[in-house]
Amino acid sequence: MAARTIKLVLEYDGTDLCGWQRQDNGPTVQQHVEEAVSEMLGEPTTVTGASRTDAGVHAMGQVAHFHTDSTIPLDGFRLGLNSHLPDSIAVVAAAEMPHDFHARFSATGKRYRYQILTRRAPSPLLRRITWHRPRPLDLASMRAAAAPLIGEHDFSAFRAAGCTARHARRRITAIDLTTAGDVVTIEVAGNAFLRNMVRILAGTLVEVGESRRPPTSTATALASGLRTDAGQTAPAQGLTLLEVLYTARHEHPPG
Amino acid sequence: MAARTIKLVLEYDGTDLCGWQRQDNGPTVQQHVEEAVSEMLGEPTTVTGASRTDAGVHAMGQVAHFHTDSTIPLDGFRLGLNSHLPDSIAVVAAAEMPHDFHARFSATGKRYRYQILTRRAPSPLLRRITWHRPRPLDLASMRAAAAPLIGEHDFSAFRAAGCTARHARRRITAIDLTTAGDVVTIEVAGNAFLRNMVRILAGTLVEVGESRRPPTSTATALASGLRTDAGQTAPAQGLTLLEVLYTARHEHPPG
Repeated sequence: MAARTIKLVLEYDGTDLCGWQRQDNGPTVQQHVEEAVSEMLGEPTTVTGASRTDAGVHAMGQVAHFHTDSTIPLDGFRLGLNSHLPDSIAVVAAAEMPHDFHARFSATGKRYRYQILTRRAPSPLLRRITWHRPRPLDLASMRAAAAPLIGEHDFSAFRAAGCTARHARRRITAIDLTTAGDVVTIEVAGNAFLRNMVRILAGTLVEVGESRRPPTSTATALASGLRTDAGQTAPAQGLTLLEVLYTARHEHPPG
Repeated sequence: MAARTIKLVLEYDGTDLCGWQRQDNGPTVQQHVEEAVSEMLGEPTTVTGASRTDAGVHAMGQVAHFHTDSTIPLDGFRLGLNSHLPDSIAVVAAAEMPHDFHARFSATGKRYRYQILTRRAPSPLLRRITWHRPRPLDLASMRAAAAPLIGEHDFSAFRAAGCTARHARRRITAIDLTTAGDVVTIEVAGNAFLRNMVRILAGTLVEVGESRRPPTSTATALASGLRTDAGQTAPAQGLTLLEVLYTARHEHPPG
């Protein structure tokens, strides 16, 4: 067993990346990070991520880990990896963790942000991180629709067709809606998320905010468990993984 | 003389553009906008901008104008031009102006923003709109250095070598420094600006904030008029033209 378990906190601009997970048809975050780590360590190294973010989704606080016998100091990992990574990916912090730390299995929760631009004209400066909807959103209706989602529920209506999770019980701890200028931000925290869950929640809330479905429709969808009772899957570029949460012994101060 | 003078308010992400002004060695904002207007109107049309932003500089409120006999309604211009423009450029508003309106000569002032990211790690999500400096900035020193710049002065020390303006007297009405998380924002308003003036001001203030020059050095540079007494030219990507100001009869409500 390798001597050290290294935790990385990663930020990335997902616009030109094919998501986290390694695949054959395009560059992924995992591939870039594994190549950078392997090059630095001089041996092939597997890097495991907390969340398999989709193509186009961004992260400010993705977490990953790898094992190594190298004695490189933590600052060396941060600086060295950033010099090997493309501009679209950066190591924000590196920390040494107890051996039982696992980026995915040790996670106790995640926090996501979904951003919507609500003015008439598109925004070149915000186009990579927002979903453009040309009309204002009714936040009071959206908050009414968000309330029944808080707590532990079967989120079968809010999972993508291809989702392979064994069951759909998840606990949402908070959904906060805020506005700054023309941008509406939906922040969602929970213990775990199904495939496309945050994007389907965002798509449903936006339809409520545009009066295209009633605020009661989230409760209806939770009760029926039917995907067709929820709204559309909001596009990837509005979504950012803000933070992965761990118990106190797996947390570490940001870099 | 053409029947109508149309004012456009433009936003753009300057990252992959070679600045405002038409040139031979790359795509410019003026070229894209002139092509879009000419295509819509079915005849070659010149578009005049308020500010010749440099390659890599962004805009949220660049202003341009053109003349036409077309009867296309204003909303038609906004929608039609946005469908002809690349994603990196958008018409935020269109308005019909008095015949004497000229985007550049009628302007009474401009407002710019310069943004600096001050944390250790680079930020993939902010890399296109900030200058990355890996250490915190001392804002008190920067404010002390900014104070003597307010008012009307000869800004010879703060102009690029190639600047062709006949004289260097300009009036700065405000310099505001604010922080939000790791990002320091310098907002500068004035009646007019020399070539690279805001970027040289920002570069000088950052050197003061990093204790690499004393807060008194701005007064020294104003007095000497020597470019070598001011700081480096901060890189283009941190700069955004926020707004071009006009007298009341040339203003119009935003779109």
